Amino acid sequence: MAASPRDGIPLAVSTVIFALRSDAESGLGALWIPLVRRITEPFGGRWALPGGWVRAEEGLADAASRNLLETTALEPTYLEQLYAFGNVDRSPSGRVVSIVYWALVRADQAERATEGENVRWFPADDLPELAFDHNVIIDYALWRLRTKLEYSRIAQAFLGETFTLTDLREVHEAVLRRPLDPANFRRQVASTLVPTGAVVSGGRHRPPKLYRYNQTIEVVDNGPISREKTGSNRAIS
Amino acid sequence: MAASPRDGIPLAVSTVIFALRSDAESGLGALWIPLVRRITEPFGGRWALPGGWVRAEEGLADAASRNLLETTALEPTYLEQLYAFGNVDRSPSGRVVSIVYWALVRADQAERATEGENVRWFPADDLPELAFDHNVIIDYALWRLRTKLEYSRIAQAFLGETFTLTDLREVHEAVLRRPLDPANFRRQVASTLVPTGAVVSGGRHRPPKLYRYNQTIEVVDNGPISREKTGSNRAIS
Repeated sequence: MAASPRDGIPLAVSTVIFALRSDAESGLGALWIPLVRRITEPFGGRWALPGGWVRAEEGLADAASRNLLETTALEPTYLEQLYAFGNVDRSPSGRVVSIVYWALVRADQAERATEGENVRWFPADDLPELAFDHNVIIDYALWRLRTKLEYSRIAQAFLGETFTLTDLREVHEAVLRRPLDPANFRRQVASTLVPTGAVVSGGRHRPPKLYRYNQTIEVVDNGPISREKTGSNRAIS
Repeated sequence: MAASPRDGIPLAVSTVIFALRSDAESGLGALWIPLVRRITEPFGGRWALPGGWVRAEEGLADAASRNLLETTALEPTYLEQLYAFGNVDRSPSGRVVSIVYWALVRADQAERATEGENVRWFPADDLPELAFDHNVIIDYALWRLRTKLEYSRIAQAFLGETFTLTDLREVHEAVLRRPLDPANFRRQVASTLVPTGAVVSGGRHRPPKLYRYNQTIEVVDNGPISREKTGSNRAIS
């Protein structure tokens, strides 16, 4: 093909969405992600990240949100750009560059997602062989999530506005996939939390205290690129 | 236009390259970046980041390297993807999505760059009004560099393999644009450095010791996405 580079390269968006779910048997939390079964070639029948094409008139984050809503009915309040994947051979049917976003959703949000024959949640650490380079993409998203957990209040995206120290530790344990010493954990996160003065209701003798994050710490600090909202008034998409 | 999304969106790459240069008067280091004067519309005559179109048969990092070499003759050994900028209105002449890379070069590498009427180095913190959203892009790249300096050995990209504590402190001071207390700085970086046993030659009474970074710390840790080399054997571009 002698096409001019100005003719463009097919541009897709995909989104990695993490939710925390408790294991019914162990009670331990684990990360799950929704995947969509492809009904067309290439990779027909394989599971893939929810996504689709970027339209000429929509921004990248808007395209990610729209495709996510259309395929899974999920509307996360928080989307962040992960990486642009552009290997020339990542699709057997011709060049596609994918801009990948990632998002975290609370369990109650995840429950509102479509689930059926062609949309299903999978444990993020135990996936089948996916379409394209989507296994690699998810590995990278997992690494990014685990790294960001250490220096931001990103865990809050899995929790409500207030939470107990145990709630917060269980999120960290589920994401990092290892048990954490409660006393050490308390010391490590103390400076990032503010006691609300309230306790968990229910009449226990020593009810657990409720905390919220110190709001001066960004959920995720992207510097001059503010959080990409799923709306039209972003500075940058 | 009723074009199908599969027809693609014009896809460009641009690169923000930082070099450290000493101010002739003050002797203090400062970050400089090379810009290219646009000779075509839109923004004809304005300065812009070096870049160009992605060809159908080349990966994203390869496209960034090729365009950089063609416009500035620079060949950085280290390129990292910064962000994909895709606002629908970022170019007045039609939709363009730009995948932006960033790189650091040593002073001796920077000196080999083309410089002339249409390629010039500018202080990163004092730029004219650039083409497209390139001022915003550079602000973001500066923020990323300053953030990464704190938790990686990225400063080494501005230095040789071995350096004195003063060399290293001066890099940090130039990037962060503030003086650092030498004793505090020494304590902060101590665990990341390994003494080479050698000293600066030249016959001084107490010659400064030479250090190198502890190689177990990544220059920049991108997890499963390894450093993007400017070659063809990357896992991912």
